[in-house]
Amino acid sequence: MRIALGVEYDGTAYNGWQRQRHGKGVQSFLEDALARVADAPVEAVCAGRTDTGVHAEAQVVHFDSAAERTPRSWVLGVNSNLPRDVNALWAQPVADDFHARYSALSRTYRYLILNRPVRSALNRDRAWWLHRSLDEQRMQEAASCLHGEHDFSAFRAAGCQALTPHRNIFAITIVRHDEWLVLTIRANAFLQHMVRNIVGVLVAIGAGEEAPQWAQQVLESRDRTRGGITAPAHGLTLVEVEYPETSGIPARPASTLLPIPGS
Amino acid sequence: MRIALGVEYDGTAYNGWQRQRHGKGVQSFLEDALARVADAPVEAVCAGRTDTGVHAEAQVVHFDSAAERTPRSWVLGVNSNLPRDVNALWAQPVADDFHARYSALSRTYRYLILNRPVRSALNRDRAWWLHRSLDEQRMQEAASCLHGEHDFSAFRAAGCQALTPHRNIFAITIVRHDEWLVLTIRANAFLQHMVRNIVGVLVAIGAGEEAPQWAQQVLESRDRTRGGITAPAHGLTLVEVEYPETSGIPARPASTLLPIPGS
Repeated sequence: MRIALGVEYDGTAYNGWQRQRHGKGVQSFLEDALARVADAPVEAVCAGRTDTGVHAEAQVVHFDSAAERTPRSWVLGVNSNLPRDVNALWAQPVADDFHARYSALSRTYRYLILNRPVRSALNRDRAWWLHRSLDEQRMQEAASCLHGEHDFSAFRAAGCQALTPHRNIFAITIVRHDEWLVLTIRANAFLQHMVRNIVGVLVAIGAGEEAPQWAQQVLESRDRTRGGITAPAHGLTLVEVEYPETSGIPARPASTLLPIPGS
Repeated sequence: MRIALGVEYDGTAYNGWQRQRHGKGVQSFLEDALARVADAPVEAVCAGRTDTGVHAEAQVVHFDSAAERTPRSWVLGVNSNLPRDVNALWAQPVADDFHARYSALSRTYRYLILNRPVRSALNRDRAWWLHRSLDEQRMQEAASCLHGEHDFSAFRAAGCQALTPHRNIFAITIVRHDEWLVLTIRANAFLQHMVRNIVGVLVAIGAGEEAPQWAQQVLESRDRTRGGITAPAHGLTLVEVEYPETSGIPARPASTLLPIPGS
């Protein structure tokens, strides 16, 4: 039987999703916990392979198991065998042809920037602190050219193993809430480091170092060396994976709370 | 010269504010960092001595130093000598009779509850996870009897060293944002564990174990053994300290929490 599982994790202590020969992958801990509940080895396939330090509020994985467990038993059993910084959110039986990665219609990532003069102890592992003043309207203007289907080679990590550099961005928004900038980006899929490289370009534009049109120029160059820096991993969180209605996996929008200074 | 300093910290790794013979107090790290900048020993006095695991978005301390530094130099210098989970926010010269603790007119604490069926990796050190469904309107109703000046002996830790059990609560509110409950409480001052003991009583009422009037009965008993459990420290954050206008310390009102949806 195939089961889909929602997973949340704090990526700070992990070398990304994938099982590692050296270092800690979230996958290893989850598979070990699932194996305990299933009483047999389990392989987990995820929707989005997050990098070192990247978080997930709503990763989705699937696995096959002959063990008969209720969704509730999967969740509680797995959680009692996981470290505190990883947990299952929900479990659901799915069809045998459901695939956490290939069935997904879209992924949504959130990138958090804390834009204020001093660093923040409480947000040190969740947001990129930038003391330079950023103009979010310039950033939004620049981001609009990335909307739609494009060759995103200029925003792709050197080691990216995707077969094609084409991706389709359905939505990209930058909203300021006082000292926070919240970038939300939804696409059919992402290349390695794509969100972080986009943030790197938008931040250079927001800081006034580059014109808004620079984003378009970088995109059209299809040349990673023309781009900006790669924004740090710890500001990035996978917040939603969307599947067709026929999969039976309901939309579960995640949410977070940001402290907004009082007035 | 006397200087006031705003301080933020993640209390997770600390045995509270106070310098410890055994264990880590935030105070030690701050005083060591201040001493580096001042080139001489520094003693820091805080507005609210937080317990083990309690956080601060806006602790206020004062210290005396003969060193001539600009406010900016104090902040940057201290931060470059502090661990990542503690940082200065602002610095300001104050009158010699200013006292971080005794001059304060009020303190505001926030207590965060994550009320959902499953635990949360990302919020494990910031919010008390409760899977029982809580009725925030019952909690608000119960909380109203705590408003004003009372003998809070029933909400006071056994080891509390305050001279009097009388405190004046100026405001207490419980607001739900989806699966989050945000309790905000402002008083002239607090007894040890007072907020956490209030939360313990309100949660029993919110879960339906006790009637809303129970809060009043506990209060009037002046007997700690009549109360509920002490809510865990990690949900608690010191979010504001208020001083008279004449102190020259501008109001920096407590932040509010803004829910950011995943998509």
